[in-house]
Amino acid sequence: MIIDKKKKLVENWFKNLRDLICKEYEQIEYLKSNKKIYFRKKKWKVNNESKGGGTFSILKNGVVFEKVGVNISTVYGSFSKEYRNKIPGASKNPKFWASGISIVAHMQNPKIPAFHFNTRFIVTTKSWFGGGMDMTPAIKNEKQKKYFHKIIKRMCDLNNKSYYPIHKKNCDKYFFLPHRNEPRGDGGIFFDYFNNNNWDKDFKYIKDVGITFMKLSNSIIKKNINLKWNKKDKEKQLLKRGRYIEFNLLYDRGTKFGLNTNGNIEAIFMSLPPLAKW
Amino acid sequence: MIIDKKKKLVENWFKNLRDLICKEYEQIEYLKSNKKIYFRKKKWKVNNESKGGGTFSILKNGVVFEKVGVNISTVYGSFSKEYRNKIPGASKNPKFWASGISIVAHMQNPKIPAFHFNTRFIVTTKSWFGGGMDMTPAIKNEKQKKYFHKIIKRMCDLNNKSYYPIHKKNCDKYFFLPHRNEPRGDGGIFFDYFNNNNWDKDFKYIKDVGITFMKLSNSIIKKNINLKWNKKDKEKQLLKRGRYIEFNLLYDRGTKFGLNTNGNIEAIFMSLPPLAKW
Repeated sequence: MIIDKKKKLVENWFKNLRDLICKEYEQIEYLKSNKKIYFRKKKWKVNNESKGGGTFSILKNGVVFEKVGVNISTVYGSFSKEYRNKIPGASKNPKFWASGISIVAHMQNPKIPAFHFNTRFIVTTKSWFGGGMDMTPAIKNEKQKKYFHKIIKRMCDLNNKSYYPIHKKNCDKYFFLPHRNEPRGDGGIFFDYFNNNNWDKDFKYIKDVGITFMKLSNSIIKKNINLKWNKKDKEKQLLKRGRYIEFNLLYDRGTKFGLNTNGNIEAIFMSLPPLAKW
Repeated sequence: MIIDKKKKLVENWFKNLRDLICKEYEQIEYLKSNKKIYFRKKKWKVNNESKGGGTFSILKNGVVFEKVGVNISTVYGSFSKEYRNKIPGASKNPKFWASGISIVAHMQNPKIPAFHFNTRFIVTTKSWFGGGMDMTPAIKNEKQKKYFHKIIKRMCDLNNKSYYPIHKKNCDKYFFLPHRNEPRGDGGIFFDYFNNNNWDKDFKYIKDVGITFMKLSNSIIKKNINLKWNKKDKEKQLLKRGRYIEFNLLYDRGTKFGLNTNGNIEAIFMSLPPLAKW
């Protein structure tokens, strides 16, 4: 398949997935509040050396979601001089094309974990997928953590038995705060430079990761949606969000990539919770 | 003067200044609330490759101060391999000694600006002072900004007419958020690698910067201490604090220095406000 067709297929998938997930989350809001709350959409364009843009969908101050952002984007151009040596296939030819979908959900109820999901397709002189999903509870829940990993493992195994152990390990390693010697949350899966010389199969995995994220976040939210919580629980959540911000601003490669490619600030920082404490 | 004596003098000064400022701030609390609220002190030690430690003083949930941290520390050891080439005089001999005082004050009343102050003395095979002070209001106040700069300029000019223009420019350049194309606050002064081959004169400037910070923060707090504020003002302050966090985690060299020299996390992150919004 020529690369242009792959790009088109990926972009369309990210758009469809965005629509699906936004609708599901709006339904969750409706389920709980009996009010119709919708995502607000904002288009944005890059207009520096890079080109392209995206659409940032946000639902804020819901009854269930305190803030959930869904961003899809396609950006292309040339990497800056400092950046190009860090990207496979870009050192001699700095041209790139990148498309992705990214979701971060921060919940009102501190007994519902925060969710993060992202998949992307990057094209330089090489091409690869990347992405993953992970969950960050403010209050520990071992049973829930097991369930989260069980469902992900099952999906991974249906693609390739080697994926889950490797991608889970990546995730644990990546979402870690060295300065506090603590993990960001319950982990999940994380992968990058994902290219097994079988694009169709790789793309199928990417789609499975997206669908599984949608179903899993849905079911965990619904399981906890009516749990009572108090001020102390909220305090714990706000402090946990402080850690989340530390990770995202100090270490996250997605944030760095966004800032380096002149991405949209609101979209780059959508991961930041609405309210946090230290 | 031999370097050991200089180190001793500097360390003592930082300790005395800490005591002075903590007392002044406790008096401000008492003035407003008629309650005696004291700084809580915590000693901390570095126990990695670097040695030394410090004392972190914190006053939280006051009537005037939402959170004010005062940290003094003396840390010494060897810079890590990645870090040593970035520090003057350390590329061949990575040994260092560093002592400093650092203050960040976040206020309850959004009409009182946040204050930041720091001075330090660094010794490798070279030695120099660094530091500065700056102010970050949540609500613009041109008159106040002018006053802040006027008093600083006067102090600088008494030391050397060239200091204020250079150190003010450094500050504007340093406390800037490129991803938002906006300054962090109203600026102030900022200097590093400060060594004019006249240690006594340089040290006098360092002391003047500290005393001026104490007087200036005091007078600006007292001027605004009884101003009424509403929910909208608080909202503005919480959003401004979000920007503050972005700067400190994405760009601040002090944060990076602390993390690279295995400093105390609470002390490194004392600059982070107690509550912030995005």
